[in-house]
Amino acid sequence: MYGLIGKMKTAPGQRDAVIAILLEGTDGMPGCRSYVVARDPTDPDAVWITEVWDSAELHRASLALPGVQDAIARARPHITGFGERFETEPVGGFGV
Amino acid sequence: MYGLIGKMKTAPGQRDAVIAILLEGTDGMPGCRSYVVARDPTDPDAVWITEVWDSAELHRASLALPGVQDAIARARPHITGFGERFETEPVGGFGV
Repeated sequence: MYGLIGKMKTAPGQRDAVIAILLEGTDGMPGCRSYVVARDPTDPDAVWITEVWDSAELHRASLALPGVQDAIARARPHITGFGERFETEPVGGFGV
Repeated sequence: MYGLIGKMKTAPGQRDAVIAILLEGTDGMPGCRSYVVARDPTDPDAVWITEVWDSAELHRASLALPGVQDAIARARPHITGFGERFETEPVGGFGV
């Protein structure tokens, strides 16, 4: 499996709008086992995204899906940058 | 919801043993929505754990469960420390 843990920074006041866009497209992504969107309780402009995929290739392929492309286009104007980013190799657990 | 993202450091050569212990106890934890154990591809002695719970209280209560207490006792000799740790407020997604 392939995992990603990452923090996204959003423009002031736009976090909930970005989260709503992110949540629209989390179903029906081939190879996606888990995709969790979370607020950062210490930063009103930060979003954490944790992802588990069958493979890095399927994650990469997802970025070309029409629904994902559309979400990226709509969210991009409200994204100001990225913070921590960690790739992982999930081995198991609950909910994955 | 309540989320945790954390990195655990294990003694040299003991990572797989610690992961096996962690994976034994991931079912049947009340309030646990997701508990993913992952290797760090950049550090042979590091494990990432990402968790989603219904509440911080249920996460805290889980630490007193007999199965969790037993796992902690068996893993502790092989744990040398902790790295990054982030609390989050999950709002939704896939697999949670």
